[in-house]
Amino acid sequence: MPEKKELSEEELNIRHAEKMHKKKEARKKILATKTIEKGLIIVHTGKGKGKTTAAFGMIFRALGNNLNVAVVQFVKGQWLSGERAALDKFRDKVKIHKMGEGFTWETQDRARDIEAAKKAWEKSKELIADTNNKVILLDELNIVLRYNYLPIEQVINTLHNKPKDTHIIITGRNAKDEIIEIADLVTSMELIKHPFRSGVKAQVGIEF
Amino acid sequence: MPEKKELSEEELNIRHAEKMHKKKEARKKILATKTIEKGLIIVHTGKGKGKTTAAFGMIFRALGNNLNVAVVQFVKGQWLSGERAALDKFRDKVKIHKMGEGFTWETQDRARDIEAAKKAWEKSKELIADTNNKVILLDELNIVLRYNYLPIEQVINTLHNKPKDTHIIITGRNAKDEIIEIADLVTSMELIKHPFRSGVKAQVGIEF
Repeated sequence: MPEKKELSEEELNIRHAEKMHKKKEARKKILATKTIEKGLIIVHTGKGKGKTTAAFGMIFRALGNNLNVAVVQFVKGQWLSGERAALDKFRDKVKIHKMGEGFTWETQDRARDIEAAKKAWEKSKELIADTNNKVILLDELNIVLRYNYLPIEQVINTLHNKPKDTHIIITGRNAKDEIIEIADLVTSMELIKHPFRSGVKAQVGIEF
Repeated sequence: MPEKKELSEEELNIRHAEKMHKKKEARKKILATKTIEKGLIIVHTGKGKGKTTAAFGMIFRALGNNLNVAVVQFVKGQWLSGERAALDKFRDKVKIHKMGEGFTWETQDRARDIEAAKKAWEKSKELIADTNNKVILLDELNIVLRYNYLPIEQVINTLHNKPKDTHIIITGRNAKDEIIEIADLVTSMELIKHPFRSGVKAQVGIEF
């Protein structure tokens, strides 16, 4: 709208108020139609950063709300000591399960990785079945599924039959179609710009 | 590779080990070239969920690493009590600044919003100048810039002259080109699937 430049500050303010009022009303209407409360299946996928970090943000928010949470780490070495140390502040509210020796380039041992994935999945099922756990993070589960270390049908079946109020967050790039299909909320983190391109090292506090 | 189906588990394991070994070596080489350590400018943008949540994940990680952090909230009402409560566990390490009465549909008062944005920006400059603050979150700054409530040149100038070791995280959709230009790491959160489409209500612990 090129005529905008000719408007006075006061006119701009009035227009703004009108526009924002309309937005507010529209939002109210939308929210009024949303009445189902249930635990959600949330997926963070994509090649960009922030999949696990955003999941941890949700975990900390849930902890702040005094909910019990559980975390299963399907890929070793992805977390920094910082996350651990921060979770330690909420020790009585958090259950953490680390998958055996982890996997991929660090182990180079496929048979052992499959074994570890199966154990971590058994643990996940237990944690999901326990309705005390209100938010459960299955960190990097997508990676394990992508390598076909777990039968996808079993995972989908467990997700399908999860306790109604439990939220489950699944992270990892290359989420399988079946996972996206069963999820309520799917976000893809896309990389636009990365400091590694310009020779910057990963460092304490911030991790890429 | 259609012949994959005919390989035995043992052959699959050997192939896997070879492939992963190569990956590991390649990764080592890349990491060896990354030697610059500096505070980064990190941007979370896009229309999807997780921009602020991932930033909070980084804040909690930094807190776990015993770093001082500061948060300026440019848009009111975006945080839930959960975040607040979780941050309270690290009270001595966190500085939080809330921007006046907040902005957009909640206030519908453009003049007051501009005033509040300016104050929050003054506070941000102070926090950035204080080298005790190692990680600074300028939450939803992009929104304020998009509405032209702050002169972009001033913001870029401050970011350009930030203390070398300070990490700054900027969130909000529609990041301006100038912000992307000066950033080291930019991630765009893209919405793939949203529960509001199917009538599910936002709720405690999980927020959309």
